[in-house]
Amino acid sequence: MALLAGKTVSGIDYKVKDMSLASFGRQEIESVEAEMPGLMACRDEFGPAQPFKGARITGSLHMTIQTAVLIETLIALGAEVRWCSCSTFSTQDQAAAAIARDSAAVFAWKGQTLQEYWWCIERALDWGSGGGPDLIVDDGGNTTLLIHEGVKAEEEFAKTGKVPDPASTTNVEFQIVLALIKESFKVDPLRYHRMKDRIVGVSEETTTGVKRLYQMQNSGSLLFPAISVNDSVTKSKFDHLYGCRHSLPDGLMRATDVMIAGKVAVVCGYGNVGKVCAAAMKVAGARVFVTEIDPICALEALLEGHTVQTLEDVVSTADIFVTTTGNKDIIMLDHMRKMKNNAIVCNIGPFDNEIDMQGLENFPGVTKITIKPQTDRWVFPDTKSGIIVLAEGRLMNFGCATGLPSIVVSFSSTKHVMAQLHLWNERKLGKCEKKVYVLLRHLDEKVAALHLPKLDAKLTKLSPDQAAYSNVPLQACPSLPTTV
Amino acid sequence: MALLAGKTVSGIDYKVKDMSLASFGRQEIESVEAEMPGLMACRDEFGPAQPFKGARITGSLHMTIQTAVLIETLIALGAEVRWCSCSTFSTQDQAAAAIARDSAAVFAWKGQTLQEYWWCIERALDWGSGGGPDLIVDDGGNTTLLIHEGVKAEEEFAKTGKVPDPASTTNVEFQIVLALIKESFKVDPLRYHRMKDRIVGVSEETTTGVKRLYQMQNSGSLLFPAISVNDSVTKSKFDHLYGCRHSLPDGLMRATDVMIAGKVAVVCGYGNVGKVCAAAMKVAGARVFVTEIDPICALEALLEGHTVQTLEDVVSTADIFVTTTGNKDIIMLDHMRKMKNNAIVCNIGPFDNEIDMQGLENFPGVTKITIKPQTDRWVFPDTKSGIIVLAEGRLMNFGCATGLPSIVVSFSSTKHVMAQLHLWNERKLGKCEKKVYVLLRHLDEKVAALHLPKLDAKLTKLSPDQAAYSNVPLQACPSLPTTV
Amino acid sequence: MALLAGKTVSGIDYKVKDMSLASFGRQEIESVEAEMPGLMACRDEFGPAQPFKGARITGSLHMTIQTAVLIETLIALGAEVRWCSCSTFSTQDQAAAAIARDSAAVFAWKGQTLQEYWWCIERALDWGSGGGPDLIVDDGGNTTLLIHEGVKAEEEFAKTGKVPDPASTTNVEFQIVLALIKESFKVDPLRYHRMKDRIVGVSEETTTGVKRLYQMQNSGSLLFPAISVNDSVTKSKFDHLYGCRHSLPDGLMRATDVMIAGKVAVVCGYGNVGKVCAAAMKVAGARVFVTEIDPICALEALLEGHTVQTLEDVVSTADIFVTTTGNKDIIMLDHMRKMKNNAIVCNIGPFDNEIDMQGLENFPGVTKITIKPQTDRWVFPDTKSGIIVLAEGRLMNFGCATGLPSIVVSFSSTKHVMAQLHLWNERKLGKCEKKVYVLLRHLDEKVAALHLPKLDAKLTKLSPDQAAYSNVPLQACPSLPTTV
Amino acid sequence: MALLAGKTVSGIDYKVKDMSLASFGRQEIESVEAEMPGLMACRDEFGPAQPFKGARITGSLHMTIQTAVLIETLIALGAEVRWCSCSTFSTQDQAAAAIARDSAAVFAWKGQTLQEYWWCIERALDWGSGGGPDLIVDDGGNTTLLIHEGVKAEEEFAKTGKVPDPASTTNVEFQIVLALIKESFKVDPLRYHRMKDRIVGVSEETTTGVKRLYQMQNSGSLLFPAISVNDSVTKSKFDHLYGCRHSLPDGLMRATDVMIAGKVAVVCGYGNVGKVCAAAMKVAGARVFVTEIDPICALEALLEGHTVQTLEDVVSTADIFVTTTGNKDIIMLDHMRKMKNNAIVCNIGPFDNEIDMQGLENFPGVTKITIKPQTDRWVFPDTKSGIIVLAEGRLMNFGCATGLPSIVVSFSSTKHVMAQLHLWNERKLGKCEKKVYVLLRHLDEKVAALHLPKLDAKLTKLSPDQAAYSNVPLQACPSLPTTV
Repeated sequence: MALLAGKTVSGIDYKVKDMSLASFGRQEIESVEAEMPGLMACRDEFGPAQPFKGARITGSLHMTIQTAVLIETLIALGAEVRWCSCSTFSTQDQAAAAIARDSAAVFAWKGQTLQEYWWCIERALDWGSGGGPDLIVDDGGNTTLLIHEGVKAEEEFAKTGKVPDPASTTNVEFQIVLALIKESFKVDPLRYHRMKDRIVGVSEETTTGVKRLYQMQNSGSLLFPAISVNDSVTKSKFDHLYGCRHSLPDGLMRATDVMIAGKVAVVCGYGNVGKVCAAAMKVAGARVFVTEIDPICALEALLEGHTVQTLEDVVSTADIFVTTTGNKDIIMLDHMRKMKNNAIVCNIGPFDNEIDMQGLENFPGVTKITIKPQTDRWVFPDTKSGIIVLAEGRLMNFGCATGLPSIVVSFSSTKHVMAQLHLWNERKLGKCEKKVYVLLRHLDEKVAALHLPKLDAKLTKLSPDQAAYSNVPLQACPSLPTTV
Repeated sequence: MALLAGKTVSGIDYKVKDMSLASFGRQEIESVEAEMPGLMACRDEFGPAQPFKGARITGSLHMTIQTAVLIETLIALGAEVRWCSCSTFSTQDQAAAAIARDSAAVFAWKGQTLQEYWWCIERALDWGSGGGPDLIVDDGGNTTLLIHEGVKAEEEFAKTGKVPDPASTTNVEFQIVLALIKESFKVDPLRYHRMKDRIVGVSEETTTGVKRLYQMQNSGSLLFPAISVNDSVTKSKFDHLYGCRHSLPDGLMRATDVMIAGKVAVVCGYGNVGKVCAAAMKVAGARVFVTEIDPICALEALLEGHTVQTLEDVVSTADIFVTTTGNKDIIMLDHMRKMKNNAIVCNIGPFDNEIDMQGLENFPGVTKITIKPQTDRWVFPDTKSGIIVLAEGRLMNFGCATGLPSIVVSFSSTKHVMAQLHLWNERKLGKCEKKVYVLLRHLDEKVAALHLPKLDAKLTKLSPDQAAYSNVPLQACPSLPTTV
Repeated sequence: MALLAGKTVSGIDYKVKDMSLASFGRQEIESVEAEMPGLMACRDEFGPAQPFKGARITGSLHMTIQTAVLIETLIALGAEVRWCSCSTFSTQDQAAAAIARDSAAVFAWKGQTLQEYWWCIERALDWGSGGGPDLIVDDGGNTTLLIHEGVKAEEEFAKTGKVPDPASTTNVEFQIVLALIKESFKVDPLRYHRMKDRIVGVSEETTTGVKRLYQMQNSGSLLFPAISVNDSVTKSKFDHLYGCRHSLPDGLMRATDVMIAGKVAVVCGYGNVGKVCAAAMKVAGARVFVTEIDPICALEALLEGHTVQTLEDVVSTADIFVTTTGNKDIIMLDHMRKMKNNAIVCNIGPFDNEIDMQGLENFPGVTKITIKPQTDRWVFPDTKSGIIVLAEGRLMNFGCATGLPSIVVSFSSTKHVMAQLHLWNERKLGKCEKKVYVLLRHLDEKVAALHLPKLDAKLTKLSPDQAAYSNVPLQACPSLPTTV
Repeated sequence: MALLAGKTVSGIDYKVKDMSLASFGRQEIESVEAEMPGLMACRDEFGPAQPFKGARITGSLHMTIQTAVLIETLIALGAEVRWCSCSTFSTQDQAAAAIARDSAAVFAWKGQTLQEYWWCIERALDWGSGGGPDLIVDDGGNTTLLIHEGVKAEEEFAKTGKVPDPASTTNVEFQIVLALIKESFKVDPLRYHRMKDRIVGVSEETTTGVKRLYQMQNSGSLLFPAISVNDSVTKSKFDHLYGCRHSLPDGLMRATDVMIAGKVAVVCGYGNVGKVCAAAMKVAGARVFVTEIDPICALEALLEGHTVQTLEDVVSTADIFVTTTGNKDIIMLDHMRKMKNNAIVCNIGPFDNEIDMQGLENFPGVTKITIKPQTDRWVFPDTKSGIIVLAEGRLMNFGCATGLPSIVVSFSSTKHVMAQLHLWNERKLGKCEKKVYVLLRHLDEKVAALHLPKLDAKLTKLSPDQAAYSNVPLQACPSLPTTV
């Protein structure tokens, strides 16, 4: 493998695209810090006590400017950090460069091959002489997976002497994983065992990663405690509510320069995301039509002043179509054929099969004109009429806007800090089992509380009498969690 | 007991305030039917099949115009009905008169004594010769309680020969209950046993009633199946969201004629009700301050554009104060002393101990000037400054506005119809146990669906493929529940 | 004429309905003072200097609680006041009683005959021995008219010796006016000449009154200076914008208890009032349809997210209809015949000919059921379907709500104070001609400024440099107008 | 002068940056056509009659994609067109290339020198052998100026024999103009006289241009009729209301990726633009503070739920500052020194002197870090705290967003078409004098009407009776203006 890491003058390992981007990255980090008040408040409140003193943290999470603020917060609290990205395309190279130059070992760049991607994970896990981290910040669960697969392979080897065989699977990515583990057998056939013995726990960001963790827990194979950062009050609700409300109009305007006022917008699905999207379109001055299969959600849409119709009823008169259902096959080729010229079609639901991109691509003679990146005009040959599809039917707020705003990411990042602090402090008490924990309510409250001062908010305090009356703890929000 | 029921020319038992109000009541019933589309749709869809053929229903629920539409819907579906109110003050006498004249036995009037109140319940339960109903619609659980206490007393009598002794309790209301039961021993010492044997089940409206049912279930004493109409998606959320959003500004304007635009409104508590109240004040043009003890809720308030401060910070500059916390001692005498002249103070939280009415009443020399019913100006003798307190600190939307709008009541009333249909149909299958059931999701969906046609809404239908993909039943909303 | 005024113990002339209502009226006056911050600020700022010292003011303006605050403000600034109402039905008897008992001569009660009405005007103009006022506050122009007609008759008499002859006109009301003038000839054939010689000027409230004043000015017959309070920035805009936004939903809810959310509302006309009504319905959760004849207004409606259709297109599916056009024959019988059962029909436009009440009343067999005062259900005999008409097609915000909120009235009342101060101060300088003046911009600004402190607002001050740059006077808002 | 125009294969004169951008430009033109329904409707309605048959139109207006749609609309109505830009920086080179290749003579590119800029104007005016156009579309008035200066110089020459002398002025730009005119003397000393004799009129876009036209009219030097497109109902109101409402949040999000919800926004000035900006910030979830000098505007802000304070009161706690005053020296260095780290400062007022950029630039040791074009972070050396200034204090919606959305431009562009049609048709009747005309109300209505069909709107028609009642012409919006 020709991949080689570099070392900075101050001795930091790294492999990034272009170290000369470091200063630009630093500027952006400084610009975004004010938008991540929870992380900055962590530095103020916990920094002096250095609670992560002695802790090694390996992180695998989109190596963006926002993540850079998380990394430097962990360091400010005393941790040593090594980082890689959890996706081949999400790294902002200036962020990686700035972190590598100034703060922590980084192995990440935009546009990795799968082989490069897994090499980076392995590098982030390697704390010298094959030793591993104390704590993991994970997103999607691949770092956790590598350790679990490593341990499994080592057990198999101990029992049968067999080393992992990439050829044993047809899954290309898993071949890479097995090859990576096989490689480590050369230096240490118990490397992953030693690694898991040291690990105090992992905090996991995503639904997908948490699902895997629960599967491991249920099958009894989970090797260390895990905290789901995803299943907390401030995560999914806030991501949807504040994230989408911000980024749906933002993405529409950046991609198409269109004025939403006066348009007819169709929102397919009126669940958590659909509700927010419909509201965002309404305040922007659009007339909103909702399509729904569930009568309760339909009733809610009506009572918010939206019109509820089927897609067929409005397909030829609407200007903007947004899918939010989480189901598939929502806007099909036949629908798109009936739309007005230059109707805008986009998806903000979690998966990319709501819009029939395949049907569109395969239509005989269709022309795809890229107006700008992530904004394509598809023209049908017979009608000469075109529709504008955003982000190729994938999440338009990530493709055409900037994904989640920094302050929303600040909530989830601060949750990682709380979860990591909790795991690290609890290690001495041995209280955490090899289970998946949901972020405790009081830690979630702490995350919210850390954001309040910079937003000029002042909390009311319960009296002992009131606390007794409502049967809740007196200190609704502890200023410093005892064990954390 | 001097209470005597009358009988109409068509042979309906009744005791109401004034039968001459019947025509006025009929007009109001006709006016409100269009606002209760779920009930009217029930008549259209289920009426022809007469599913309640042979069923006797005893109802105990505020005898209002809205309830009259429910009663006549049950009758339209084939039921025989006897009715009483669940509260001594909530009856609208014109509604009772109209029902008594045209439709069903009614025992209800505004301003009952406790004794009269319980006499009415007993009358509503008596279907002749002491026989009881097949089904109960209950609100607060007193009708259910009477039967349970009756059965208990009869068992005690069977074992020990003791008849119930009102003097055995100091609780005045329970003395009345025991006296009532004792009375029935004279004619039939197994009357309540026979009653409970016949009863197929009860649908219960309120949190309080449901709490009692769970206690009975847990202690093993529940005598028949129960369905909680309260714990369904469309109930508490809809009551809060649509009910309070409508009735907070309505109550403020009816009580004080004040223009909300330009005012500073303080909303104490940012839970489900507080969120809606703050939003309602904001769209009406007020500047909104929120007080909160929970940092997560505080963060939510900030992100909606409200200011979060303590009550102390804003008490002397705000114009309108609304408590929504569900806790006690929120606005105390000291706060009220600091308010601006003619500041408006009201509560829309569930209990009436959020505002310190006792402290206010006991302030030496304070003058209470009733501007109009439920709207009092309290003037402090030293400062000559006054504050305006709505509904004496009780639920201002019931005291100063008209409570829940008819269409919101239509949701819960239609739920009773669904629950009663379910209990009645399941009786043949014997599937319902002596347990508390939450309204099944598909019945809740049916309730919503029944409202849609009159709101001009059209549902989208899942394809078999989409249903499989999301792992949900194909028919999200059955046009006619099989067993119901 | 059997009309006789009384005299209070403190010597105040009056004729009111019921003096025992005075205490109730006083309570309401005290309650409303906080909602009229401009008037209260006038008392604080101008009261000490007693600028109206020596001025007699005759006022003719709806004798309501709000007007009572105006009257007592004029008195607090040093004036003597006599008052009558400008309408036979608008007096609040408790307000009249309180003013009569405590503050000023009043001749007003609810439900006057036309003869009584004009007798009251004459009484209000009579300051003893037939002497008249220095200043007039007028609404509709009848007080001004009486003086002008009196002067005309006296001139005719001087020339020809003819006294006014009521029989010379068929107009019943004008017969009363002539009879009143004729009566005064008995005591003093130059009474109205002496009166007009003394008068310094009039401030007029309404469009109708101002129109008359301009006609007099144009014909050269205007006898004293006049200030139009109507044509100022804060009057018509504020009345429409803030008044209707408040009172349309208020009136709908009070009259029908209906929840607006989820309804389809049709707003006929999208002018100044229509824009506000459509916006109010939208924020209340209705789907809004607008009908318009003007393409520019139609475009504005579209760009606010409303749907623009003809009345015919939506008449059979909408729930609420509001006319705002200022034109006639907007909702005709044929439209009403096609509406849904219990559709709500109301008018908030200036005149009462937008809804075809006559067509409705004359429909053979139609039944009118009064649900509550100003709320009628009209049922068609053939369809048994009814519609609900508010305020008999007249201004629904006056009929079903409380008209303009006090703070909006505070703006116009404060404008009268400014106008009266201006006229009174200018009398010495003789600068005012016998012309109609629009309220000077700086007086209008002063009105706004007087409201700001109680609304916690702080103005920014222009620097001399900025004033020069924009070519405006340095002191945008003089703290005390020099001549006023 | 080394500037040379090219000629396309089809014989069109042009000078553009890069002809290879034509296809890209064509795609964008096709994309934007649907957003300019007024222009497209003009092609449908007027195209067949070819009303511009024989008319030569010279246009000088930002050579953008949106203007390309205007140009091709004029051509579709029968005109011949030559075009240049009215600004050295506003040309979109792909738009210029597409027009040059497919439609009309163009002389425009982004980043011209002043000399190049005026050369382009002269080229656009030259229809061969020095002959000029019949009609002018102008923006800012420079094309009109060149003709007027040319005529003046020729008159001077006729009188005195003197040719224009660039050295006679110190104004660099005017030196260029004189040099250009001098050059034309070589071929034809009466060129501009001939030009003005042919010209039927000009339609002018901007306030600045219209101001110049009025000065010419007042001094009697205006050489041909002019129509101000600026002073029409749908222009300034629509540009402000819909343009700024769209582009303020759009610019903020594009420049800084910031989530507006939860922020404190200060809007300096509450005039037409300030009102819209404050409303846009409020619906986006910000808490809005307004600064104002005018008490009436301050009152309006209060009644919309905003807080009114001075800049000093909020400068250290707010997150976003927007100037909208039209005055100067609004946000000064001292203010910026007190702001929070990364506070955002921008201007959407007409001129660029509201923010003290000079003070900022001259602060000793200040660092300017360009985060992205038009988005700079200025860091003070002593505090290390930075502020983010958008578009260097110039119009942020043009610098950081895309200026006015296409549909808003569609209104003003369609107005040019109406104005040009009017001028061209009236030429035969000789009705237009050498005066500045405001766009006639019926033409303005026509502009609006042309947009309605594509927005699915349906107008109501006045009955003859209603028209008489309101004293307006029966046909509020003529389907085809008689003379136009």
